[in-house]
Amino acid sequence: MESILEQSRRNNPRLGVTGILCFTSEVFIQVLEGGRDEVCELYNGIARDDRHRDVRLLVYDEVSERSFSNWTMGQVDISKINPGLLLKYSKRATLDPFSGSGHVTMALISELVASASIMGRSS
Amino acid sequence: MESILEQSRRNNPRLGVTGILCFTSEVFIQVLEGGRDEVCELYNGIARDDRHRDVRLLVYDEVSERSFSNWTMGQVDISKINPGLLLKYSKRATLDPFSGSGHVTMALISELVASASIMGRSS
Amino acid sequence: MESILEQSRRNNPRLGVTGILCFTSEVFIQVLEGGRDEVCELYNGIARDDRHRDVRLLVYDEVSERSFSNWTMGQVDISKINPGLLLKYSKRATLDPFSGSGHVTMALISELVASASIMGRSS
Amino acid sequence: MESILEQSRRNNPRLGVTGILCFTSEVFIQVLEGGRDEVCELYNGIARDDRHRDVRLLVYDEVSERSFSNWTMGQVDISKINPGLLLKYSKRATLDPFSGSGHVTMALISELVASASIMGRSS
Amino acid sequence: MESILEQSRRNNPRLGVTGILCFTSEVFIQVLEGGRDEVCELYNGIARDDRHRDVRLLVYDEVSERSFSNWTMGQVDISKINPGLLLKYSKRATLDPFSGSGHVTMALISELVASASIMGRSS
Amino acid sequence: MESILEQSRRNNPRLGVTGILCFTSEVFIQVLEGGRDEVCELYNGIARDDRHRDVRLLVYDEVSERSFSNWTMGQVDISKINPGLLLKYSKRATLDPFSGSGHVTMALISELVASASIMGRSS
Amino acid sequence: MESILEQSRRNNPRLGVTGILCFTSEVFIQVLEGGRDEVCELYNGIARDDRHRDVRLLVYDEVSERSFSNWTMGQVDISKINPGLLLKYSKRATLDPFSGSGHVTMALISELVASASIMGRSS
Amino acid sequence: MESILEQSRRNNPRLGVTGILCFTSEVFIQVLEGGRDEVCELYNGIARDDRHRDVRLLVYDEVSERSFSNWTMGQVDISKINPGLLLKYSKRATLDPFSGSGHVTMALISELVASASIMGRSS
Amino acid sequence: MESILEQSRRNNPRLGVTGILCFTSEVFIQVLEGGRDEVCELYNGIARDDRHRDVRLLVYDEVSERSFSNWTMGQVDISKINPGLLLKYSKRATLDPFSGSGHVTMALISELVASASIMGRSS
Amino acid sequence: MESILEQSRRNNPRLGVTGILCFTSEVFIQVLEGGRDEVCELYNGIARDDRHRDVRLLVYDEVSERSFSNWTMGQVDISKINPGLLLKYSKRATLDPFSGSGHVTMALISELVASASIMGRSS
Repeated sequence: MESILEQSRRNNPRLGVTGILCFTSEVFIQVLEGGRDEVCELYNGIARDDRHRDVRLLVYDEVSERSFSNWTMGQVDISKINPGLLLKYSKRATLDPFSGSGHVTMALISELVASASIMGRSS
Repeated sequence: MESILEQSRRNNPRLGVTGILCFTSEVFIQVLEGGRDEVCELYNGIARDDRHRDVRLLVYDEVSERSFSNWTMGQVDISKINPGLLLKYSKRATLDPFSGSGHVTMALISELVASASIMGRSS
Repeated sequence: MESILEQSRRNNPRLGVTGILCFTSEVFIQVLEGGRDEVCELYNGIARDDRHRDVRLLVYDEVSERSFSNWTMGQVDISKINPGLLLKYSKRATLDPFSGSGHVTMALISELVASASIMGRSS
Repeated sequence: MESILEQSRRNNPRLGVTGILCFTSEVFIQVLEGGRDEVCELYNGIARDDRHRDVRLLVYDEVSERSFSNWTMGQVDISKINPGLLLKYSKRATLDPFSGSGHVTMALISELVASASIMGRSS
Repeated sequence: MESILEQSRRNNPRLGVTGILCFTSEVFIQVLEGGRDEVCELYNGIARDDRHRDVRLLVYDEVSERSFSNWTMGQVDISKINPGLLLKYSKRATLDPFSGSGHVTMALISELVASASIMGRSS
Repeated sequence: MESILEQSRRNNPRLGVTGILCFTSEVFIQVLEGGRDEVCELYNGIARDDRHRDVRLLVYDEVSERSFSNWTMGQVDISKINPGLLLKYSKRATLDPFSGSGHVTMALISELVASASIMGRSS
Repeated sequence: MESILEQSRRNNPRLGVTGILCFTSEVFIQVLEGGRDEVCELYNGIARDDRHRDVRLLVYDEVSERSFSNWTMGQVDISKINPGLLLKYSKRATLDPFSGSGHVTMALISELVASASIMGRSS
Repeated sequence: MESILEQSRRNNPRLGVTGILCFTSEVFIQVLEGGRDEVCELYNGIARDDRHRDVRLLVYDEVSERSFSNWTMGQVDISKINPGLLLKYSKRATLDPFSGSGHVTMALISELVASASIMGRSS
Repeated sequence: MESILEQSRRNNPRLGVTGILCFTSEVFIQVLEGGRDEVCELYNGIARDDRHRDVRLLVYDEVSERSFSNWTMGQVDISKINPGLLLKYSKRATLDPFSGSGHVTMALISELVASASIMGRSS
Repeated sequence: MESILEQSRRNNPRLGVTGILCFTSEVFIQVLEGGRDEVCELYNGIARDDRHRDVRLLVYDEVSERSFSNWTMGQVDISKINPGLLLKYSKRATLDPFSGSGHVTMALISELVASASIMGRSS
């Protein structure tokens, strides 16, 4: 994971890409914001990378303004989150983005960002 | 009632179920939040349990976030409520969920939760 | 009027009826909240009572919550109101519920209740 | 019932009142449209008339146009209605306006008027 | 299944309950419309009946008018449906109400009713 | 392209995937409908396939019903389209999905499907 | 009235004013459409003309398109209207624009125009 | 102007009319609130008064509550207003109600009333 | 004008620009649809061309689909239009786009296009 | 640029034009508010001025009130802006109004005005 963050923080400013990375020991959820070409190529690179399994797209939308414009690639350690916050958006008190709507996972991430401290370097 | 609460608090965390129990000496109103399978099986168990009579479903909906995600099974003793609060949502100053819309009973519970102190253990 | 209020305060708690009585020396406006049967029978009794003339219904609606759940029968002496408040909802600075929409009269009563002191006993 | 209809048809044109009368052998539902004074006095007269019991007001509203402007007092014999039409708006296949919302009863009447033939004299 | 339908058609008219039964060789989906007491008791009876497994409630709502008021208990054999119709509302061309939103299953049933022929006796 | 269509028509029914393929001699636009896992794995496979260049995601959404449930993989030859139809949604009378909003390209496809004949086998 | 219509039809085309004149033996209702200056000066002239009494403005609005652009001054003899049409928008079966909202009178005129034949010369 | 204000303040309370008068050395804008008969007769009197030229009606509407119920006839000297406030609603930094929508002039008056001090006597 | 149309029809297809030209002997109204760069450069060229006076922009918007995608440069001779159609959107029965909102002029053009025959060559 | 601002501040008050000028070393974005004739003539003058290249119109609308009524021609030096603010509305951390919707550029300017200090003279 360190190398992912390192790579993101080296390449993203040049590409104009911002976002955050939420992780537990088992699952990564990454939010990418930027031009369509840049975001698609980053996603395609993830899909081609053999180190990842079960790559899924949850939400993909054209937005009129970014939510994470100040973060090259912020990071949130979800394993340290209050279980009630996970339950608010999930069936069980675990991070399980594979079941349920992608928009519900985005709502969880928005609340994490609003309540938890994002770590990392601002762009 | 003690055994109901005890049982709820023992099983609910494992099932990812949260909610509250409102009661007078005569009526129980229980709010259950969780996965559809878990909530249905809990309700079916209540319907099968001979100790309950006149089991009625008031409101049942798919929600995008829980309202009671921090409570394994909170509890509210309605017999100690200000009569004006009951009148606000009922014909008479008693708890009578059997007549009237289930959504009105849910509005009463929401106001109880906002104004009264919920007792019990958080999840 | 004293006997009306006395009678209201004796019967309303038993019937689960709440409301307020606005009056000048010439006109009474009464708001009744409760079950449909109870409110209709109270209105029918008023219509049958020879002491009243020109009984008119202004607004009648099914509501999901009461506005006066804490008042057996509050009372407001409109003759002591600031004339500008009456003008806000009327052609002249007098209480004339017989002309104009019933909803405008209800808006006047809502503002009276919000700004003036209601006298009487809470339920 | 004949005398009610006779009386309605004699007085309503003079008062500018229109409407319809729905009836079974046990229940009357009457829709009255007109000026507020005229409609209220007609209702008050019904409330004062000892031949009626359990007089209830279902819906009362200020409208910008009438629905029955061409009928002095139309009439619909509900006992001849298809049971499925009654079930569409009721718990049982009977006319029971005393339970449930007045607006549901109005929806039943609107569908009756749209589908059944109204008998009587146009204004 | 024959006995279920037989029983429904014997009891439902007395209870004022209408609806339809959709079935394959493996799954039953039943729509029940009626008073809250009657529908809840029918559901509770199904939950208590050992011949059923995995009883789930998909959608439960207070409605202002019925959709099946003319059917004591209509029936639809889903195994004879065009696969494209199942795919329109499902991941695979099979009936799988256990995954996905209950409202999507209701949309499938509405389209089945609009396009397929319901068999059975009208109420 | 023949092999793409052949492969789609062999695998899609098993995966429950439907959709259409629009093509000119230079650009492919593919609409895929199905479960999230299946659609993501198909897209990831396309991204990993070296025969494709400049793979871009235009629109990605959770839908409550499919638009192409009857087509394993329909096909539309855009090079035979009326130029005015392309101009309606583009700057120039060519197919250029790389510039402009993905939703505009989807509107073009919807109009193509409504007006042009889709070739291929229904599922 | 003849002279009013004569004068309207002589001056209105020059002023770019269109509209209709509804009349009984006792009341005139005139709709004027045009530039604000022209309509105001016409109204002011009516207000100054001693032959008129009780001149009232019912509705006055800036519109994005005219309703009577093809009529220099159409005319409708309301005394020949079906009484049910007047009742639809009035307390009594007479034309009484002095009581009630101006918008209700405009609704009556719109229905008159849609159903009755306008007499006069088109612009 | 003194005589206008004097006259307004003598007659308006009796008529139940309230409002404000905005003026520069060249233009008067008067807001009148009251019963339709009273407001129309006041306007008709202004139209008939030879001392006024170019009398124009800007906005005329039925309102459910007054905005100036506490002012017999307030007054605002627009020549003392910040030019930026006039520019906010006008082409030039002058008061020119003769061009542009009447609603924009009303928006200017509302902001004047909210920000500037109204002079005169309350009703 | 012939040269304008000739020039438009020579250059527009290459630029992907479509539209129509409405004209009287005194005024031209031109609708241009295309990429922002192309439309702006065409407008700038018109503004720089000494043969035009009083060039005004009426409406300018980003659209999700074109209205005139089938016309290189259609043409409408407004001097042959029914005067009532001009009055519908203007103070006088003339084409005067310099006064009033640009959106009203666009509404006139839309109605012209819907009702009148556009002359010229399709793209 | 100094001469542009000087000229704006000399002419704009006379024309009733307000606005702001945003600039980097390479791009100017100017917001002009005023009468349609004045704004069009100013834009046409810019289009005719050989010192400008690639003049583009981003947004053009009829507004009911101005946003910059207090500024003859405010100025914002965008090269001193926080890069995150530019990224919020752009693909890259540069000012590039030539790509993307004009409304997004207006949203950036609104946020610049709300957060940054405008320099220059108020009108």
